[in-house]
Amino acid sequence: MSAPVAIVCGGGGFPLAVADAARRAGREVFLVGLHGAADPDIAAFPHIWLKLGEFGKLFRALAERDIRSLAIVGNLTRPDFSDLRLDFGGVKRLPDIARILRGGDDHALRGVVRFFEDEGFAVLGAHELAPALLIGEGLVTRRAPDEAAREDIAMGLALGDGLSPFDCGQAVIVAGRRVVAVEAAEGTDAMIQRVGQLRASGKLRLKGRAGVLVKAPKRGQDLRVDLPAIGPRTIAAAADAELAGVALAAGGVLVLERAALAAEADRAGLFLVGVAPRPTGP
Amino acid sequence: MSAPVAIVCGGGGFPLAVADAARRAGREVFLVGLHGAADPDIAAFPHIWLKLGEFGKLFRALAERDIRSLAIVGNLTRPDFSDLRLDFGGVKRLPDIARILRGGDDHALRGVVRFFEDEGFAVLGAHELAPALLIGEGLVTRRAPDEAAREDIAMGLALGDGLSPFDCGQAVIVAGRRVVAVEAAEGTDAMIQRVGQLRASGKLRLKGRAGVLVKAPKRGQDLRVDLPAIGPRTIAAAADAELAGVALAAGGVLVLERAALAAEADRAGLFLVGVAPRPTGP
Repeated sequence: MSAPVAIVCGGGGFPLAVADAARRAGREVFLVGLHGAADPDIAAFPHIWLKLGEFGKLFRALAERDIRSLAIVGNLTRPDFSDLRLDFGGVKRLPDIARILRGGDDHALRGVVRFFEDEGFAVLGAHELAPALLIGEGLVTRRAPDEAAREDIAMGLALGDGLSPFDCGQAVIVAGRRVVAVEAAEGTDAMIQRVGQLRASGKLRLKGRAGVLVKAPKRGQDLRVDLPAIGPRTIAAAADAELAGVALAAGGVLVLERAALAAEADRAGLFLVGVAPRPTGP
Repeated sequence: MSAPVAIVCGGGGFPLAVADAARRAGREVFLVGLHGAADPDIAAFPHIWLKLGEFGKLFRALAERDIRSLAIVGNLTRPDFSDLRLDFGGVKRLPDIARILRGGDDHALRGVVRFFEDEGFAVLGAHELAPALLIGEGLVTRRAPDEAAREDIAMGLALGDGLSPFDCGQAVIVAGRRVVAVEAAEGTDAMIQRVGQLRASGKLRLKGRAGVLVKAPKRGQDLRVDLPAIGPRTIAAAADAELAGVALAAGGVLVLERAALAAEADRAGLFLVGVAPRPTGP
């Protein structure tokens, strides 16, 4: 039997979903829970708890189990130096850590991957451990996008592509061929809520269910550390904002609690569709 | 003496500022106040009041005064059909009006210009009537952008350029080479407030005064109908959000109440600078 793969667990439901899917696929897992972030239920798997910065403890635990590959899954608030509880193993790696904490989100995440690779680990993505969680191409809901929604989807994919070099969000909302919201630091759900508020205040006027949330990885994005994801809360937010539906890049977005999410979308009358991402030029 | 120029006045302080600057420059003006939007103080100038849709009344008033050129200035909420109070002159032009109300902001505004041009008017921009209100290249405040802020400015200009084809907002906020907000339907001030809230909630962590608001026209934007603008409220919002400063495309952004605005920025310790927009390729 091969050594387990470690899953470094941030916040939210994804770490457990990925651990569960990996185990179903016959893969042994070892969970590393970050204090204050990870779900206490990781205790259902072999695991340890760590504070951010306890790299010595982390690497000892992995070495003891002969673990040479890991994935980083879940929400992590961009930490500050003052959040770090560096043990001796952390202090030794301080220059690397300092380098990681500078720059954009992409830079930070790429830095984390490089950091673990430099330590000799293979860094996997949640999409590799649990490919069944990725959305495929095709319709998930009963309702399908109409002609207007398909135009909005095409525009959203093109816009996301245009934003790719700039290390900002992965989601946009397009309504009637008009870009009404672009995600950056606020996150997808907050962006959707903003559109709902703009509609409620009359500042943004759209008729009936209108607007499509389009979410896709950036071109060249390293899915090992920054895999776009949605869960039932995203659908609930889209329903509250009276969007027409949600379009996700097939093979590029992780879907949490798919059955509950599809039921929620059907109940709200939203469409949810996996679409082929824009073809990449040569 | 030549015929006056008409200024169709939406909401906010810009119509009066432009009318005043035009008159100082020796130009006669005739103000057209839109009920429910324009400042009652337009009564200090020769003027009429109109409801949106009273095109017959508008064109009669302009013809009586021999007016063949006009500018459209100030905030206009994107109207709905149900907002229009069409007189006979409006009903006759209904197909044109319907065409204008479809599509993105840019489309709507371009449609309004074309509509007036088709009626035989020269449509001017506020920047042509009142060029003194445009920001020039150079520093307005005591404080200047440091090296980090200059990098953020360059990134913001490049991002704005990349967004140009997509008919969305004109402003972005970049902090530490990270895009933290992109404006779309919410407007500049609401976007700035969002960054303040993200910082207050700890979701976005920046040290001290950080982040630059970068505002510039889109490439190829028709400044006659969609001239980026800032006023003292923008500076107040930037101060509340603890931004480091504001950078505006020289020659492309109208500044309202410049003296008050500069004083407010100095008091808050912000920089305000007019920067050369990105060179346009051949």
